[in-house]
Amino acid sequence: MKRTAFFISDGTGLTAEALGHSLLAQFEKIDFERVTVPYIDDEEKAREMVTRINKAAEIDGDRPLVFDTIVDSQIRDIISRADGFMVDIFGTFLNPLEQELQSSSSYSVGKSHAINHSGSYERRINAVNFALDNDDGARTRYYDEADLILIGASRSGKTPTCLYLALQYGIKAANYPITEEDLADQRMPGTLRPHREKLFGLTIDPERLATIRNERRPNSRYSSIQQCMHEVEEIELMYRRERIPYLNTTAYSVEEISTRIMVTTGLKRHR
Amino acid sequence: MKRTAFFISDGTGLTAEALGHSLLAQFEKIDFERVTVPYIDDEEKAREMVTRINKAAEIDGDRPLVFDTIVDSQIRDIISRADGFMVDIFGTFLNPLEQELQSSSSYSVGKSHAINHSGSYERRINAVNFALDNDDGARTRYYDEADLILIGASRSGKTPTCLYLALQYGIKAANYPITEEDLADQRMPGTLRPHREKLFGLTIDPERLATIRNERRPNSRYSSIQQCMHEVEEIELMYRRERIPYLNTTAYSVEEISTRIMVTTGLKRHR
Repeated sequence: MKRTAFFISDGTGLTAEALGHSLLAQFEKIDFERVTVPYIDDEEKAREMVTRINKAAEIDGDRPLVFDTIVDSQIRDIISRADGFMVDIFGTFLNPLEQELQSSSSYSVGKSHAINHSGSYERRINAVNFALDNDDGARTRYYDEADLILIGASRSGKTPTCLYLALQYGIKAANYPITEEDLADQRMPGTLRPHREKLFGLTIDPERLATIRNERRPNSRYSSIQQCMHEVEEIELMYRRERIPYLNTTAYSVEEISTRIMVTTGLKRHR
Repeated sequence: MKRTAFFISDGTGLTAEALGHSLLAQFEKIDFERVTVPYIDDEEKAREMVTRINKAAEIDGDRPLVFDTIVDSQIRDIISRADGFMVDIFGTFLNPLEQELQSSSSYSVGKSHAINHSGSYERRINAVNFALDNDDGARTRYYDEADLILIGASRSGKTPTCLYLALQYGIKAANYPITEEDLADQRMPGTLRPHREKLFGLTIDPERLATIRNERRPNSRYSSIQQCMHEVEEIELMYRRERIPYLNTTAYSVEEISTRIMVTTGLKRHR
């Protein structure tokens, strides 16, 4: 049983998509074909959209679900004529919010008002550049500027997490790989000591680490399960001894790792 | 006039936050204090949340707005006792969706069901690694593997866009900076020619480019407005001559640039 779900927006469609995906995740038995369509911002595109929705209805034998965050009412009206089940995300909530806030929204007065990312834009780009410049322990002399220093074994997820924190939250995160030499005396590496309040540790199940490392360097000592078990054990011991907060990333997505770090460290999003 | 808005979730809170921000953006006159609170997943945390909401109500002199995507009804019940205006994101839409789909949701049977990112997780991490390995024209021999090759002047936004495309969509994007030498004969650089169907150009207003470059290398030829004007002009000429699709990034966020590239190129998200 297949059912098409459209996420339609006059902007990027990220909001309609995020909400739509979360809602559909609650219906485990149904196989959804998900289609995101951003930038439906004039009547011609809206009419093409109607054709697309009707076509999907014909193929599926069931009308598609249509999640939309379109602000312009004329464009919405055109789309609502299609053979779809409309989920009007903005309309549903804006009316009660207007009453609560005793204020008219741009939506109800028919004026589009895009979300402005620009305030945080430069901060986020600078944070991305910071993450790239301070990746993999390449340079440690800028650690004073860092909001956060992620540490952990090679391939435990530090780099993608740093980049996500930069892009999503504007956080300047450096990362430092803990090597075997660092672990020789079971203490925190000396370079990190002055910045201990910025440290956050990542760890990962050794089996998973071995799988990931094998993709890079198959059948090497580096990717052997023995080596991975040894490193993970020593690193976790060091985290506990030095009281560094840490997280096992095995079961988590980059989004979840990043959000949990934000909560644990109390770091705030930069706007 | 300040009003607090909470975005509360038993997961990352990204959905509640995305929808909440979009809705609040429609009320331009009101100054919102936005607070995202992820991982409210037990009754104790819910009770602490009530205290926090009530405190904000007291300070603001107005009850806070509370956008939530909590699945567990007992946790939701506790939070709804606070002095807040509840916007029940899941509850509002799941009931009509259940009727339309003639299926019970995990929500209504009281079972939490997190969104599973893991299917695309490895693809996305590999895409991030690909972007890092093929950044700044460092290596061109892997262009066969690329889904997309972003080209443009130095500092026109290629790297953050590649990383966002990797993290959000699992797209393998390389990037190649167009240098003055490349522009000497006003043709596409030879390395890029075999991959022309993968090329997408970025451009940017020269004033904005000069500002960005000045942060890196103040008062240099590289960051002078004359140099920026010259490069942008030559690059746009080359895009048009070679019929490379391109986008002026000046007014856009990384999200918007990425979404527009997805639309123009017809690339599909990897799951």
